[in-house]
Amino acid sequence: MTGAEMFERGMTIRREVLGDAYVNKATSNPNPFNAPLQELVATYCWGWNWGREEELPRRDRSLINLAMIAVLGRSHELKIHTRGALNNGLTREEIREVLLQVGIYAGIPAAVDSFRIVNEAFAEIDAEAQAGGAE
Amino acid sequence: MTGAEMFERGMTIRREVLGDAYVNKATSNPNPFNAPLQELVATYCWGWNWGREEELPRRDRSLINLAMIAVLGRSHELKIHTRGALNNGLTREEIREVLLQVGIYAGIPAAVDSFRIVNEAFAEIDAEAQAGGAE
Amino acid sequence: MTGAEMFERGMTIRREVLGDAYVNKATSNPNPFNAPLQELVATYCWGWNWGREEELPRRDRSLINLAMIAVLGRSHELKIHTRGALNNGLTREEIREVLLQVGIYAGIPAAVDSFRIVNEAFAEIDAEAQAGGAE
Amino acid sequence: MTGAEMFERGMTIRREVLGDAYVNKATSNPNPFNAPLQELVATYCWGWNWGREEELPRRDRSLINLAMIAVLGRSHELKIHTRGALNNGLTREEIREVLLQVGIYAGIPAAVDSFRIVNEAFAEIDAEAQAGGAE
Amino acid sequence: MTGAEMFERGMTIRREVLGDAYVNKATSNPNPFNAPLQELVATYCWGWNWGREEELPRRDRSLINLAMIAVLGRSHELKIHTRGALNNGLTREEIREVLLQVGIYAGIPAAVDSFRIVNEAFAEIDAEAQAGGAE
Amino acid sequence: MTGAEMFERGMTIRREVLGDAYVNKATSNPNPFNAPLQELVATYCWGWNWGREEELPRRDRSLINLAMIAVLGRSHELKIHTRGALNNGLTREEIREVLLQVGIYAGIPAAVDSFRIVNEAFAEIDAEAQAGGAE
Repeated sequence: MTGAEMFERGMTIRREVLGDAYVNKATSNPNPFNAPLQELVATYCWGWNWGREEELPRRDRSLINLAMIAVLGRSHELKIHTRGALNNGLTREEIREVLLQVGIYAGIPAAVDSFRIVNEAFAEIDAEAQAGGAE
Repeated sequence: MTGAEMFERGMTIRREVLGDAYVNKATSNPNPFNAPLQELVATYCWGWNWGREEELPRRDRSLINLAMIAVLGRSHELKIHTRGALNNGLTREEIREVLLQVGIYAGIPAAVDSFRIVNEAFAEIDAEAQAGGAE
Repeated sequence: MTGAEMFERGMTIRREVLGDAYVNKATSNPNPFNAPLQELVATYCWGWNWGREEELPRRDRSLINLAMIAVLGRSHELKIHTRGALNNGLTREEIREVLLQVGIYAGIPAAVDSFRIVNEAFAEIDAEAQAGGAE
Repeated sequence: MTGAEMFERGMTIRREVLGDAYVNKATSNPNPFNAPLQELVATYCWGWNWGREEELPRRDRSLINLAMIAVLGRSHELKIHTRGALNNGLTREEIREVLLQVGIYAGIPAAVDSFRIVNEAFAEIDAEAQAGGAE
Repeated sequence: MTGAEMFERGMTIRREVLGDAYVNKATSNPNPFNAPLQELVATYCWGWNWGREEELPRRDRSLINLAMIAVLGRSHELKIHTRGALNNGLTREEIREVLLQVGIYAGIPAAVDSFRIVNEAFAEIDAEAQAGGAE
Repeated sequence: MTGAEMFERGMTIRREVLGDAYVNKATSNPNPFNAPLQELVATYCWGWNWGREEELPRRDRSLINLAMIAVLGRSHELKIHTRGALNNGLTREEIREVLLQVGIYAGIPAAVDSFRIVNEAFAEIDAEAQAGGAE
């Protein structure tokens, strides 16, 4: 597979997991400074890693990702991957269980912070659904 | 449920996940210094958290735990939970996928370190199986 | 002790340390998603851990907590526990010493970040005191 | 060298690296609470460490600093040291390479977060340049 | 105070806290590579930071240090500072409480790892005492 | 460029930086479990990232890597990359400066630990050189 094909495979998975709205925004302003990061993320993270779907399904990858990103304290990414986790079939209750287990294995502050972020993500998703439903 | 009952529930799950050999060793030398740690681990980590089995099954909890412990760089615990992950139904290949994803989201050194630890755990398990099979 | 009794003991200590205003706000919107986190925090963190007051007094636990939370980079929690530290009898100067030592053992960026958060906490507390005094 | 001389040496380097505007702001509100932090930062971080210029030049120290601060997830400091890195002769493209390498060795979320912060720093610097040019 | 005086003050405190045996070993092999690290540690960590004894006593600084070093996962340093904590007047039971609180705020693996290290430190100290008593 | 070509480019750079002895050992025991990690490391870390040599030379990449890996506390990797740093043209004194700066920005325990590891690496390299010279 060429790098360009891997990039395309990655972009397809990324859009399916995180949604077109997010990916359009993240890639809407292409410039030479950010281009290699976009290439790295699409090719390596999404094409290569998430592309290994036969070895581990998307739902399981979302479980792992939420846990890692919560431990690492990367709030922006946690919010984005909360949306991805729902798209990949995790329920809100399953996401909660991940965060409770983060509290046990990485400490209460990591859990309290992560609950706040994930609740914000849910509120945004609910607001969008309501806005969409009102059309 | 009383604390004592939660402790007992936790010890049962802990033995089922990590195996009697490990738990016997970890609790073989009870003393006043370590007793509250044992109480904390059995009651809250195993009884309360792992006891929420209806909300998230053991297999999924092992996926999350391997990822978190690899990110946190706690090698002793990673080895123990590798054994637990196999007992909870993850295959070696699925464990590998967790560690590859750790490499993407927490960096290559975390993955390389974790592969080394997990390979050691597999070698120990294989040696025990061979020793057992030779009896 | 039952889990419910431990929860009550934890809530009492939590209110004494962090103040009714904060705890009322944190628990004002009970819902099924957040309920297990509230149970975990009250029972395990406050009831079990902070409840071991005969082994280590609250003032010492606040010293430890400020240091850990500063190292972990959890700003929201650091602000909350600054308030708790003052309630537990630490002076502002003692809190400063904790953060200077964080600078030596966990690096200058951790100290600079933590000074900013703690100064914000002090400013909020002073503003409340002034507002209260003006009534 | 006395502590006061080391302090002065540190303040000189700090001003040359981070710029007068930033340092004036950081030190504009001297008070007994913050004074020891300012002493620590100026003496130990800038005077002692950055003062070792014959052993390693400023440009190399900026490479190291951007990488470390990105890994540690300290966003405020990353923004400040982006400015310092440009003052020390790194190009925007070289800063980008540091952050890409952070992505490989400390994980994609660290890179994505850091690109966002550094882009913000660049935008602020460009806005200042434009405001200055318009005078 | 000159840097040399601060270095001397730091070496005195370091010897009082960590013991001559450890400090003699750490400084027994002076060479140009390690010399600046020794200077940094003695002058800033011990002379400047630990020298602020009027602001916070040694016992409190040991509480903070054990917590931070356990969170950071630096096992060698944890063992050294366990010895320092006992010299500074903390009891073994108080050290245990620090580590239990580490378990709550930084996660169970940090606590389990730290208990193992601290138990090793206690065993070494007991063996030395027994060897000394047998003379 | 195909993935296979990127893999080959990465293996070439990896051998040049880390040395044939290390790479032969790391890849001597190919098996299905470790194969995807080897693919990931060679293709993305070495081929893609280190392959961007026109954007940032190897010497600068070694500065960054030593700092990051020291902060992350990954001792095995730090030892390997110390060897790589020397191969890429850093002097032992420059490596020392990186670790001193790690002490300032990530804390004294990170520096003390890293000095120990790097001293071990130097001792191994010196022993090999002496053994080689004796032939």
